[in-house]
Amino acid sequence: MHRTKVRIVEDALDANNTIARANRDDFDRHDVTVLNLMSAPGAGKTSLLERALAEPIDDLRVGVLEGDVQGSMDADRLATLHVPVTQLNTGNGFGGECHLDANMVRSALPELPLPELDLLVIENVGNLVCPAEFKVGEDARAMVCSITEGEDKPLKYPLMFRACELVLVNKIDLLPHLDFDLDSLLIHVDEIFERTLDALEVERV
Amino acid sequence: MHRTKVRIVEDALDANNTIARANRDDFDRHDVTVLNLMSAPGAGKTSLLERALAEPIDDLRVGVLEGDVQGSMDADRLATLHVPVTQLNTGNGFGGECHLDANMVRSALPELPLPELDLLVIENVGNLVCPAEFKVGEDARAMVCSITEGEDKPLKYPLMFRACELVLVNKIDLLPHLDFDLDSLLIHVDEIFERTLDALEVERV
Repeated sequence: MHRTKVRIVEDALDANNTIARANRDDFDRHDVTVLNLMSAPGAGKTSLLERALAEPIDDLRVGVLEGDVQGSMDADRLATLHVPVTQLNTGNGFGGECHLDANMVRSALPELPLPELDLLVIENVGNLVCPAEFKVGEDARAMVCSITEGEDKPLKYPLMFRACELVLVNKIDLLPHLDFDLDSLLIHVDEIFERTLDALEVERV
Repeated sequence: MHRTKVRIVEDALDANNTIARANRDDFDRHDVTVLNLMSAPGAGKTSLLERALAEPIDDLRVGVLEGDVQGSMDADRLATLHVPVTQLNTGNGFGGECHLDANMVRSALPELPLPELDLLVIENVGNLVCPAEFKVGEDARAMVCSITEGEDKPLKYPLMFRACELVLVNKIDLLPHLDFDLDSLLIHVDEIFERTLDALEVERV
């Protein structure tokens, strides 16, 4: 039974990768760079975007695709900025999924003003497990890691940390008020990256 | 395609409920009360158990089933207490699932010392979406909600809040250092519960 399940998961991921490549082609055609932004719930993805997009970044034209199980609270927050924001809910027709996948992002493409963008940030559903498994056609992946979640998260959710090109450590202003060892977190992140490099070496050999 | 997907999800949840009832029967036979403890990653489930179980609670015999994608860090932390702890990894044969389901819990039953327990706490995988969808045979569900995650979580992840008999608001010692409105969180929790009650009324009519 487990073998069947693994097979079904592999098939689903294979179909997802095919659609992700189609998304990638559309983004490339419009010369849009795409960032898939992930984190646990409440780690600060939307607040980060609010701060980063409050002022124009040179001539960079930025848009946001906002992924949530339901509601448009984050999109509403970002709508006060002068960037186009498109809401994508996994609860509408997608069964309340805990992550975005390539097909969901594809369904939102007609609503995205791609010709008017240089950078599209896709804010994924808050979750440290499944979002890391599903490519959506992005150029890069970043995650926000809040120190309030503890030092052990890279060891407990290694796939997420391994899947990202950038880990952004957030809420460090709370450091004086927490029993938290920042060095320990960074060591754990390095361990995950080193293990990934080891695995790549094995694949090359 | 979406309709098919919803059908498959319904079938899976139906099978899950059947196995959850079998678990429930086994727990009942041994007179064990079971709590399904859920939260976002790093909200403090394990720390809560460490504190709650540090001293014996009268004659209550407590055991913990520790759910994680991989590793046994939390189980190792709890093993220093004098309670039996059993590790259940969703990464071993279960495809790295983002939640526990009834079948996973069933697979762990032979390792649980049920005749020696009054209360079993099942610590679910850190995630605010899927754990709420899968019953595992529990008597009650509780969630830990850390104030560092923001006031909006009940509105963004309503199923989780609705699925629980108890919402435990955690990390309130950080209140002086956060831009956080506790009343707003509690109002949102009440809203979700009221909506649930409204829905129940509609079902009755």
